Amino acid sequence: MKVGGVPHRSVWRDGESVAIVDQTRLPFEFAIARLRSWEDAAVAIRTMQVRGAPLIGATAAYGMALAMGTDSSDGNLSSAARELLGTRPTAVNLRWAIDRMLSRLSPLAPSARSMTAWSEAEALADEDVALNLSIGRHGFGLLREIAARKKPVNVLTHCNAGWLATVDGGTALAPIYLAHDQGIPVHVWVDETRPRNQGLLTAWELTQHGVPNTLIADNAGGHLMQRGEVDLVIVGADRVSANGDVCNKIGTYLKALAATDCGVPFYAAVPGPTIDWTIRDAMLEIPIEEREASELLEIRGRLAEGPIARVTIANQGTKARNPAFDVTPARLVTGLITDRGVVPASAQGLAGLFRQKAA
Amino acid sequence: MKVGGVPHRSVWRDGESVAIVDQTRLPFEFAIARLRSWEDAAVAIRTMQVRGAPLIGATAAYGMALAMGTDSSDGNLSSAARELLGTRPTAVNLRWAIDRMLSRLSPLAPSARSMTAWSEAEALADEDVALNLSIGRHGFGLLREIAARKKPVNVLTHCNAGWLATVDGGTALAPIYLAHDQGIPVHVWVDETRPRNQGLLTAWELTQHGVPNTLIADNAGGHLMQRGEVDLVIVGADRVSANGDVCNKIGTYLKALAATDCGVPFYAAVPGPTIDWTIRDAMLEIPIEEREASELLEIRGRLAEGPIARVTIANQGTKARNPAFDVTPARLVTGLITDRGVVPASAQGLAGLFRQKAA
Repeated sequence: MKVGGVPHRSVWRDGESVAIVDQTRLPFEFAIARLRSWEDAAVAIRTMQVRGAPLIGATAAYGMALAMGTDSSDGNLSSAARELLGTRPTAVNLRWAIDRMLSRLSPLAPSARSMTAWSEAEALADEDVALNLSIGRHGFGLLREIAARKKPVNVLTHCNAGWLATVDGGTALAPIYLAHDQGIPVHVWVDETRPRNQGLLTAWELTQHGVPNTLIADNAGGHLMQRGEVDLVIVGADRVSANGDVCNKIGTYLKALAATDCGVPFYAAVPGPTIDWTIRDAMLEIPIEEREASELLEIRGRLAEGPIARVTIANQGTKARNPAFDVTPARLVTGLITDRGVVPASAQGLAGLFRQKAA
Repeated sequence: MKVGGVPHRSVWRDGESVAIVDQTRLPFEFAIARLRSWEDAAVAIRTMQVRGAPLIGATAAYGMALAMGTDSSDGNLSSAARELLGTRPTAVNLRWAIDRMLSRLSPLAPSARSMTAWSEAEALADEDVALNLSIGRHGFGLLREIAARKKPVNVLTHCNAGWLATVDGGTALAPIYLAHDQGIPVHVWVDETRPRNQGLLTAWELTQHGVPNTLIADNAGGHLMQRGEVDLVIVGADRVSANGDVCNKIGTYLKALAATDCGVPFYAAVPGPTIDWTIRDAMLEIPIEEREASELLEIRGRLAEGPIARVTIANQGTKARNPAFDVTPARLVTGLITDRGVVPASAQGLAGLFRQKAA
């Protein structure tokens, strides 16, 4: 996507290092950070300088390439893989990307690993972009259908599943960008997405692209749906089980409940690598990350005088709990917008598109 | 309730003026503000120095007394009433309190109005405290029942319906305080309640009273209910229709949906003056206040160096929409904890307790 007219990915190779858009500094500053080692990549994932399931996967793949650049031994291959895998537990794209790198690199002689690692990471990143373009095309039909009867199309989204959550193009936002580019009037209700406020990333990137959008509190989406002000909900996903349960950013479940109650279609945009075919019961089997209380208790913003500052919103000693994801049962999901088409959120729906995997 | 060992109400007469706890300065500072005119009272209500349906009502009543203290003419009586009524549209307690003051004061000679206004406002405030004690006693049974099979009792609450939302004692928190005082182990999940973060008020007052509590993002409650970590939801109300629909702080509807989906009992604590017998269809008839976008875009907190500061969390030009309340249909409400007992959220349930009003 373009930032100030210049095309950018969220992560890319830059010589023997990797460049990322540092998302902890958005929406105020568009800053590029440099990763010079797999340890840097691990820190970037853990601290959410990069976030979003597809981007986490791609960054881990690049992290493996960085690891091979300095020490391509079996020992370093497996320890880098293990440490990168441990950075975040919920998004399955992380495991998928690392497994892919391992299966490509393990059979090779150490001397051949570095070059292959870089090309495999590049291939994985390019494929992510291609998957997202496909998701955009498949999801586009849903927006076009609505636009045939009313305009603008009001889409609600939760968290950021835009280009910042992927290598480029976005998942949930891909159909929105395409519709906008095709001249369909779209307006996006952007959930703030406490505690990390990824809604501010979504508002920022939509605005960069010229898509009208309005920030709302996470509390407000149900009310807007009750009043007929939402035509469609599209969210991303961090892990989708073989039966179509959607694990995504905390609060997604609440929006799915409201959508169901109000008769608003609720879709998750899901690239193939986000499906975990080993999971049958998402509620029992998907590990839900619990993050630091400080994410809820502290917030970053701009002071009246201009500088960026961090403030604590609660008194000292306030206890907080911070689960980062929840599971939306398939029964609440109208459909999954995958890179292979839009299907019902069910074992049958998914198996129809991904026969080999589901077997 | 006691603050640092000293009993306080949220609003009280102090000579010819009215004192309030300035809630815009909590949780960092416990500061008393003084209202010297009905205009001061109107500002305090509008800017949410006082908030919470019962407290808004009581403050407006005191505001009428302030008005009568300076000019007890018919003209000032009706203009003070009109202006105070216009401060906030959703909580019916405001209209109820002003109507009560008007019907008491209008028939009197102007010279008799000031003294009567003060005593009527005092009576209304005292009655609020008594209603809340009754709500506490009636709701207590729900917590005791749960405690008989498991401990601690995990209650989730949204917004602040504690003593800060009332003259004293609280509505939703009244049963929790009573249970805690009776030795029943209670733990409260406190929704942050964006955008005004009234959850910080709730955490503050629960902690003052020694009740264990944990702040969570508004997004997290559904997940906790799915995992069996919530035994009971109790919220307050800003206006309840004759058929039991509950209009309350934005986001309440989402928690009611999750509670229903997860089989968690969902109660609203409702003093008589919060019931609007004229409303048959809450969704169509109750005006939902829309507040300033700045409430979502700016946040107050403490800088690392200690001082309190306001920061803007979004880029300049970010659009935001800020509806302040939503309606939870009666079908999602397990019951209403009123000052006369716990009843089903239905026309029949309410009419059984308030025969005269419902007639």
